[in-house]
Amino acid sequence: MRLAREHGFDKVTVDMISAEAGVSPRTFFNYFPSKEVAVVGRTPGALPPQLLDTFVAGGPAHPRTVLEELTRAIVDQMAADPPERQEVHDIFMLAHGTPSVFAALMTRFDGFRQSLAAAVAQRMGPDADEGIPDLIATVAMAAVRTGMERWSSDLTTDGSDSPVPYVERSVALLHLLLAPDHTSTRSAP
Amino acid sequence: MRLAREHGFDKVTVDMISAEAGVSPRTFFNYFPSKEVAVVGRTPGALPPQLLDTFVAGGPAHPRTVLEELTRAIVDQMAADPPERQEVHDIFMLAHGTPSVFAALMTRFDGFRQSLAAAVAQRMGPDADEGIPDLIATVAMAAVRTGMERWSSDLTTDGSDSPVPYVERSVALLHLLLAPDHTSTRSAP
Repeated sequence: MRLAREHGFDKVTVDMISAEAGVSPRTFFNYFPSKEVAVVGRTPGALPPQLLDTFVAGGPAHPRTVLEELTRAIVDQMAADPPERQEVHDIFMLAHGTPSVFAALMTRFDGFRQSLAAAVAQRMGPDADEGIPDLIATVAMAAVRTGMERWSSDLTTDGSDSPVPYVERSVALLHLLLAPDHTSTRSAP
Repeated sequence: MRLAREHGFDKVTVDMISAEAGVSPRTFFNYFPSKEVAVVGRTPGALPPQLLDTFVAGGPAHPRTVLEELTRAIVDQMAADPPERQEVHDIFMLAHGTPSVFAALMTRFDGFRQSLAAAVAQRMGPDADEGIPDLIATVAMAAVRTGMERWSSDLTTDGSDSPVPYVERSVALLHLLLAPDHTSTRSAP
């Protein structure tokens, strides 16, 4: 990100990144297939295996419970290992102006989504409604993503530097979104 | 897609695609920045402007109502102009094995999502909860995407060749997912 700020992302080469990091380009490519994948690698991309194991060990439950516990696991992980706001902001800004970085970021988010879907499927077992694990993972990622985007663009706010309240707010909005019929009056929100 | 099936996607060039289509490579590049973007261009990527206008004209409403009308608009459009199942299946399969195509597909889905979020924001006006338009669009896309994926991989099914019942099923599952507390008993689904 520093090289991108100094030279423009298009001008940054893997040789330059490797030289800065004190490694060979060959070593760079052992870790990352491209500079795009390297630069988005500082955004959340997976839950730690032990957290996923604990989640899976909860066993089959109502889809709502599974969604709640999945978003809780994600929020706990963000609280334990918070991403850096300015860094996430800069990566998102770079992605919005650079299609190849945007594509790498979308691919990273989708890898995260797929790892969550696999954990939900494992937890719910073969009797789960078809399509539910993917949907739970996709909806959880929707809350994470919209929360992270508001957090990362809210650089002027005083106080907490954590994305946790933003993601929690997105989860609360999700429930408002699908509130039961009797609250669904037609009025301006 | 036919050239990709015959030669492998990596071996297909813009020159080959242009020759098959009877246009110059220059004309190809007037429409598509790359062969990846061309190949994913047969998946749903936006709603027609008149459908979006009708949706926006509904005016401010409860977020749940807005989500329902947005998913309804998407389903109506799919019913009016149904994608071809084998083609969508082949594009998804190609994307799963080819990172550059996968990235192009994710970018296309995200452009769809952004166009929906803009329409929701326009409809709900400046008084809407911050974050709600993005979340509504993201959740609607989650239903579309998971429905389309089940439909496109369900090639053995007799009967309807339309993705509509699959997307409608994902929307119904969404509501199950966020059903009110009193149904949230802890039991195997």
